[in-house]
Amino acid sequence: MTILERTDTNAVAHLRLNSPERLNALSDEMIAALQAEFDTLKQQGHIRAVILSGAGKAFCAGHDLKQMTQGRQAEDGGKAYFADLFARCARMMTSIRDLPQPVIAQVHGIATAAGCQLVASCDMAVAEAGTKFGVNGVNIGLFCSTPMVALSRNIPRKKAFEMLSTGRFIPAEEAERLGLINRIAAPGTLETETAELAQAVAAKLGAAVKIGKQAFYAQAEMGLDDAYAYTGEVMVENMLYRDTEEGIAAFLEKRSPDWQQ
Amino acid sequence: MTILERTDTNAVAHLRLNSPERLNALSDEMIAALQAEFDTLKQQGHIRAVILSGAGKAFCAGHDLKQMTQGRQAEDGGKAYFADLFARCARMMTSIRDLPQPVIAQVHGIATAAGCQLVASCDMAVAEAGTKFGVNGVNIGLFCSTPMVALSRNIPRKKAFEMLSTGRFIPAEEAERLGLINRIAAPGTLETETAELAQAVAAKLGAAVKIGKQAFYAQAEMGLDDAYAYTGEVMVENMLYRDTEEGIAAFLEKRSPDWQQ
Amino acid sequence: MTILERTDTNAVAHLRLNSPERLNALSDEMIAALQAEFDTLKQQGHIRAVILSGAGKAFCAGHDLKQMTQGRQAEDGGKAYFADLFARCARMMTSIRDLPQPVIAQVHGIATAAGCQLVASCDMAVAEAGTKFGVNGVNIGLFCSTPMVALSRNIPRKKAFEMLSTGRFIPAEEAERLGLINRIAAPGTLETETAELAQAVAAKLGAAVKIGKQAFYAQAEMGLDDAYAYTGEVMVENMLYRDTEEGIAAFLEKRSPDWQQ
Repeated sequence: MTILERTDTNAVAHLRLNSPERLNALSDEMIAALQAEFDTLKQQGHIRAVILSGAGKAFCAGHDLKQMTQGRQAEDGGKAYFADLFARCARMMTSIRDLPQPVIAQVHGIATAAGCQLVASCDMAVAEAGTKFGVNGVNIGLFCSTPMVALSRNIPRKKAFEMLSTGRFIPAEEAERLGLINRIAAPGTLETETAELAQAVAAKLGAAVKIGKQAFYAQAEMGLDDAYAYTGEVMVENMLYRDTEEGIAAFLEKRSPDWQQ
Repeated sequence: MTILERTDTNAVAHLRLNSPERLNALSDEMIAALQAEFDTLKQQGHIRAVILSGAGKAFCAGHDLKQMTQGRQAEDGGKAYFADLFARCARMMTSIRDLPQPVIAQVHGIATAAGCQLVASCDMAVAEAGTKFGVNGVNIGLFCSTPMVALSRNIPRKKAFEMLSTGRFIPAEEAERLGLINRIAAPGTLETETAELAQAVAAKLGAAVKIGKQAFYAQAEMGLDDAYAYTGEVMVENMLYRDTEEGIAAFLEKRSPDWQQ
Repeated sequence: MTILERTDTNAVAHLRLNSPERLNALSDEMIAALQAEFDTLKQQGHIRAVILSGAGKAFCAGHDLKQMTQGRQAEDGGKAYFADLFARCARMMTSIRDLPQPVIAQVHGIATAAGCQLVASCDMAVAEAGTKFGVNGVNIGLFCSTPMVALSRNIPRKKAFEMLSTGRFIPAEEAERLGLINRIAAPGTLETETAELAQAVAAKLGAAVKIGKQAFYAQAEMGLDDAYAYTGEVMVENMLYRDTEEGIAAFLEKRSPDWQQ
């Protein structure tokens, strides 16, 4: 049994966190496995969308507290280990942004702490009705400072602060309303709803989605004028793709595009 | 017939995109006409609010794909033309921000791609019930990278990403909920609702709205401390206007202000 | 009678603006009193949460216009006084961000102009049903440029612009939906609802909340990669707290933590 299962269906790669007895905790091994798959996916142009889900009763319950506690045995009380752990975890999270393919979190049960961060770090998210989201580290004295980086870029400021400082869980309905997830799947429809969304994205021109996704996050950190200067160049590059020329021609001629992708 | 109609009512200028047979596409001519009017309006202190609407069955369907395709005939495959086009379009969009007057989009039918960007670029927007919004360039292989600059500064991140990567249209209700528009007008009331909003703004002290609008977008790109240092100066300048002194005095004396504006 | 009442209950300090005849206006004296209490609270580690409320029929109606008008008597027409006033006010507002304790606005009646800014500047806010919020300075010719710094970091851009340029008040329901407040208290429950939220925060590990709150606002102004590098260090520091070690151990052993805090 592998800690991270991968199943490819057409152009969609489905990664399943598979450590259900630990609620799919982001152990050293899980982080490494995710990083390895993301590094692989970055090179796999035939994959056009990625789904990330969890086996068992929860999507992901965050860091592996037992393993972190073992890390304290080192002479420095774990300082070097923790620094390395959070750096590896952040690198894994930002690798989602750096992938050419959109990544969709398929969430059920609970997504807590770094597990909630994982949802927030994905490009899109679908959650089963009944799912609960929390950044509840504060309850055990560990403020979710790295999860908040992703969370606070998804939802309004005061709502994020409340979740972080009270540890309160929010239901899927609230998560959708605030912008943490894109949609809620009725019970029993989570897999099909997520697959449909992934297929919708995978059916687009991969090169356009790739350049667009990259630009999406890059321009978000720029002022308006810089953002336009940058995305103007992106549009020119996109316009010059052979498949985009064909896509526009097909649209004007009211026919389906003949894409080489 | 002009491609962009302008009608002034009291202190409100109403610009109407008038190329209904092309769904008011942002052709070279339309972009130039809008730019010319914005340049004119910037000098017209007697105009206190601007409404932007579209003739025919749609607000605006984005760039003129036929014209763009013709641009490919150049020796460089259109590269220079496209670069110039996107620069002109971005300049037109950011001219809305740089106008002293608030600009209100009056939207009906559909607003797609750069048409949706136009809505997002306005200071406020009112849409008729039934209006649909989309950044659907991805469907023809052209990711809406410039439209996303404006869109992603209006609505939550994951919702913007979904619209951009799936091409999905959202109805007016969702657009209002996400923050892309300010309000929905019941069928048949779009013009009066928008006019009322424009008149409400036009009735304010123009100098105060001008300095406030400019500060609104400038401070949005600053850190909190810089934003306060800057807006503090704006407040001092505003306080020293003769009409502001009169406005405050009138308020304290429970009478109407006698503004010279 | 003091202009700012303070009552401590367990680890929660409750500050009450007490100038009801002026609708708790932010006069020079009120700003100074708030600043003094914030400076004191910054040193009081035993206080874990702060509630900010107003006596009388309104939370706070903004700056003291009579006092500002008196400031015009100076030779420079008030220029130096206004500059100093807005600097003092901004320092007071940002002191809320700089406090180690979360600050919760307990809002009733109306919160207007700098009073609305005060709500937006708090980490969280609870409002009684029926409360109205506005940045209505534009109605008297004074655009709410400093209030918009806080407001525009709480709610979507177009909604903020509308409030600022029209002076329109929004009801508590809309304020909650937009993110300006966290929750609405049914009539008669405002104090207990706010106290419960404050107690929930106060029960957490103070050192963790302190480092987390500081990081929350600091990372918000960084790009994603810098934000992760910074919060990674914060997580390491937090992990090395004795009480956090105990909190995690207690969680793993399914017992209550024995915190020294």
